[in-house]
Amino acid sequence: MQALGNNYIYVSLYETTLPEVSLPELSRLVSDVRRGIGSDGLITIEESRCADVRMRIFNADGSEAESCGNGLRCVAKYVYEHRLVNTSVFSIETKAGVVEAQVHVRPDGSVKQVTVDMGEPRFGAGSIRYAGNRMIGDDEVVLEVGTQQLQGTIVNVGNPHFVTMVDQVDDDYVRAIGPLVESHEDFPERINAEFVSVLNRNEIDFRVYERGSGVTFACGTGACASVAAVVRKGLVDKRVTVHLLGGDLEIGIRDDGHVLMTGEAVTVAEGTFAWPSPEPSLVTL
Amino acid sequence: MQALGNNYIYVSLYETTLPEVSLPELSRLVSDVRRGIGSDGLITIEESRCADVRMRIFNADGSEAESCGNGLRCVAKYVYEHRLVNTSVFSIETKAGVVEAQVHVRPDGSVKQVTVDMGEPRFGAGSIRYAGNRMIGDDEVVLEVGTQQLQGTIVNVGNPHFVTMVDQVDDDYVRAIGPLVESHEDFPERINAEFVSVLNRNEIDFRVYERGSGVTFACGTGACASVAAVVRKGLVDKRVTVHLLGGDLEIGIRDDGHVLMTGEAVTVAEGTFAWPSPEPSLVTL
Repeated sequence: MQALGNNYIYVSLYETTLPEVSLPELSRLVSDVRRGIGSDGLITIEESRCADVRMRIFNADGSEAESCGNGLRCVAKYVYEHRLVNTSVFSIETKAGVVEAQVHVRPDGSVKQVTVDMGEPRFGAGSIRYAGNRMIGDDEVVLEVGTQQLQGTIVNVGNPHFVTMVDQVDDDYVRAIGPLVESHEDFPERINAEFVSVLNRNEIDFRVYERGSGVTFACGTGACASVAAVVRKGLVDKRVTVHLLGGDLEIGIRDDGHVLMTGEAVTVAEGTFAWPSPEPSLVTL
Repeated sequence: MQALGNNYIYVSLYETTLPEVSLPELSRLVSDVRRGIGSDGLITIEESRCADVRMRIFNADGSEAESCGNGLRCVAKYVYEHRLVNTSVFSIETKAGVVEAQVHVRPDGSVKQVTVDMGEPRFGAGSIRYAGNRMIGDDEVVLEVGTQQLQGTIVNVGNPHFVTMVDQVDDDYVRAIGPLVESHEDFPERINAEFVSVLNRNEIDFRVYERGSGVTFACGTGACASVAAVVRKGLVDKRVTVHLLGGDLEIGIRDDGHVLMTGEAVTVAEGTFAWPSPEPSLVTL
């Protein structure tokens, strides 16, 4: 399945018993486009003790990730369509905590989009590890980046973000400035850098330099942090379409302050992975 | 399926009727690792009027290729295991002509390896379009490459090859010299450049700079051309294991001069591709 171009292999452990193998090893196998299937990683769907379902995310290198907004939407689509849940609103356990998801269903019963409750954002230098002393008001800080001064809003939506406003999004600019923000000495745990251009009161353009990943097609938490920042500045209404490189997300701020993220989830193909055999690569004929 | 890391999506048109779509478009769709499955392209398996089966190969960009040794082996495995042929030796029609394949079957009926008859090679400057005047004997030419003189055997196995001997294969050397050979003015139609190190009378190391593709993991015709060249030089016996970046091929010269290539063919996964829906990417909720 994929969402905004972020693609994983999804394995339901409700329905499949895996052979004796480690999940990190399986993630490396299926993610390899040459000898496996090709993906950003592996996501397992499992029974949960504290939520309706549980997901685990393994990157293509086998490391386990905490959560992923695009993956959450695909898991929600999967469990609803495979009747592992009976309601359109349900909870999903991730390594980062339990989140609530709501599926939006087509007349034929398939899930077109999913809304995920991303929780309540926190703002300002106090919400993250900040080692600088250039705070402006409650929410903003100024960074020295090369010869520039960059002012931005600090938002924590489970992970830390520096959201800065630009007249127009520019990929070259993001590639140049992004890494300097991400690794700036004022952010000892590094940070995600977002560049936002407000198009009108219900639409923003968005680019991200993701902590540890660089320029990516779609960063759900970054889009949420950005909307939270521009709503707080009063620049947009509480319902915004975010244009990301990989497609659109619709992000709303609920009256209780929670950020709701809505976007696509797409099934690409469904089938059976053939376990690589342990035979030597060439037999003598 | 994949062979030596060369991976395609295989669709049998015996068993599947495709919706109204062009095959180049389908190849682009499935090859895209982000929103499709991820592959080097699409191979269709169809009924043939002049052979037991027919294959067509589309690259990831939608262009149609003539043939592909790794693809041929996977097609042979597919049609045998799916009982589209009844014998272990059969013929496959490609855009480059009809070739004969033989499957090697495990006790459980699955195909482990496939031998393909790659035909009779031709040697020397007269077998290709050669615009130089530095021939040595019947088979070889000398190239000026930068400050070096590079001597190699010209072999045509359906496509043109320049096979040069090295003490030891060296990827940096191939990346540096390969493009200069490929596009040398003496080869107006460009050429595949092979670098071969003879390990013993039944084993060679091999690297290739493929015409139009650069350094690749596995080039079947290049391996055949290389073995043909070193057999002709008397450096090896008529049965040679070729070590490529992507794995091993076993190549033999039959008494009638035909080159037989044997190698793996691996099923990675089998399933159903979900046709992308024409819906807009976001509905209004």
